Amino acid sequence: MSDALDVMRTRTVLRNYAPERVDDTLVDTLLDAMVAAPTASNKQAWSFVVVREPGSVRRLRAFAPGVIGTPALVVVACVDRSRTDRLPGHVSQKIYETSKLCVAMAVENLLLAAHAEGLGGCPVSSFRERQIRGLLGIPDHIEPLLVVPLGYPAEAPTPSDRRDKNEVISNERWGHAPAGTSA
Amino acid sequence: MSDALDVMRTRTVLRNYAPERVDDTLVDTLLDAMVAAPTASNKQAWSFVVVREPGSVRRLRAFAPGVIGTPALVVVACVDRSRTDRLPGHVSQKIYETSKLCVAMAVENLLLAAHAEGLGGCPVSSFRERQIRGLLGIPDHIEPLLVVPLGYPAEAPTPSDRRDKNEVISNERWGHAPAGTSA
Repeated sequence: MSDALDVMRTRTVLRNYAPERVDDTLVDTLLDAMVAAPTASNKQAWSFVVVREPGSVRRLRAFAPGVIGTPALVVVACVDRSRTDRLPGHVSQKIYETSKLCVAMAVENLLLAAHAEGLGGCPVSSFRERQIRGLLGIPDHIEPLLVVPLGYPAEAPTPSDRRDKNEVISNERWGHAPAGTSA
Repeated sequence: MSDALDVMRTRTVLRNYAPERVDDTLVDTLLDAMVAAPTASNKQAWSFVVVREPGSVRRLRAFAPGVIGTPALVVVACVDRSRTDRLPGHVSQKIYETSKLCVAMAVENLLLAAHAEGLGGCPVSSFRERQIRGLLGIPDHIEPLLVVPLGYPAEAPTPSDRRDKNEVISNERWGHAPAGTSA
């Protein structure tokens, strides 16, 4: 069995970071995994800002209360509307909505890659958009969607409880528990 | 280096499926990876319908033109609004929007797990929602977001071209290419 499955099953949110720096090559590896995510109609309507300078990380954190502790880096994951807005109205709206899902998939790749390499992180959706735009010089057509702090763990994170699998997965028709599966 | 990184980097969209059945235990493994995705505020506001019966797969495909060929199974990934709507208005809307991103992350886990195990798939966002609701008995509070066909590849899929990394990733401030990274 691939260890990729273990990486997915053991990933959990990390909010408490060790002060260690993350090596440039490793950051590059994480970013490679991130941009390999699925992308609707191959639009790649996404844009990412990687913030590693400690002063900038501190300022970013002040505008995103979900960022706790002092991460070694923060990735601000955005939709690039210049790549969704050139299409006819309803197609444009649909590609825009789907591109948000692609950005989320890219962030999941980033979090999985981090976990695979002994780091951790946390997707944060609550932040003061205007202030973050100002801090990072983000133009109007780039829309910040998730702020992702990353770093080495200060201590092992605690996995969150999950709903019973049979409650969230149906078999053939909605509401039918999967036959023969364990919860 | 973890093979999880290779799984992420080599995953690509599969649209041409072999007629082979996928073993029950393997389906269960893929679903375990799927529901291990991040979930905003641990709401787990998601619901998934797994369709494997060949007649149902054929009918589903008729309502989702992005599903090409004959996949061994289809997972319909949904947001569960009953878990986002009980909150005050603006919190409810925010959790709903973020829960869509979590469903997308769960779908990415599903696609990565499939690829790790020699299968492939494709996230499809264009489908006739009303007809799929009718076919699968999906109630009003469950909102289908992505339809995901999965199966063994009939032939090796072709990776899509990607934008130059320096075009989509900025360093410290938006528009600044990462220093010392390769494209």
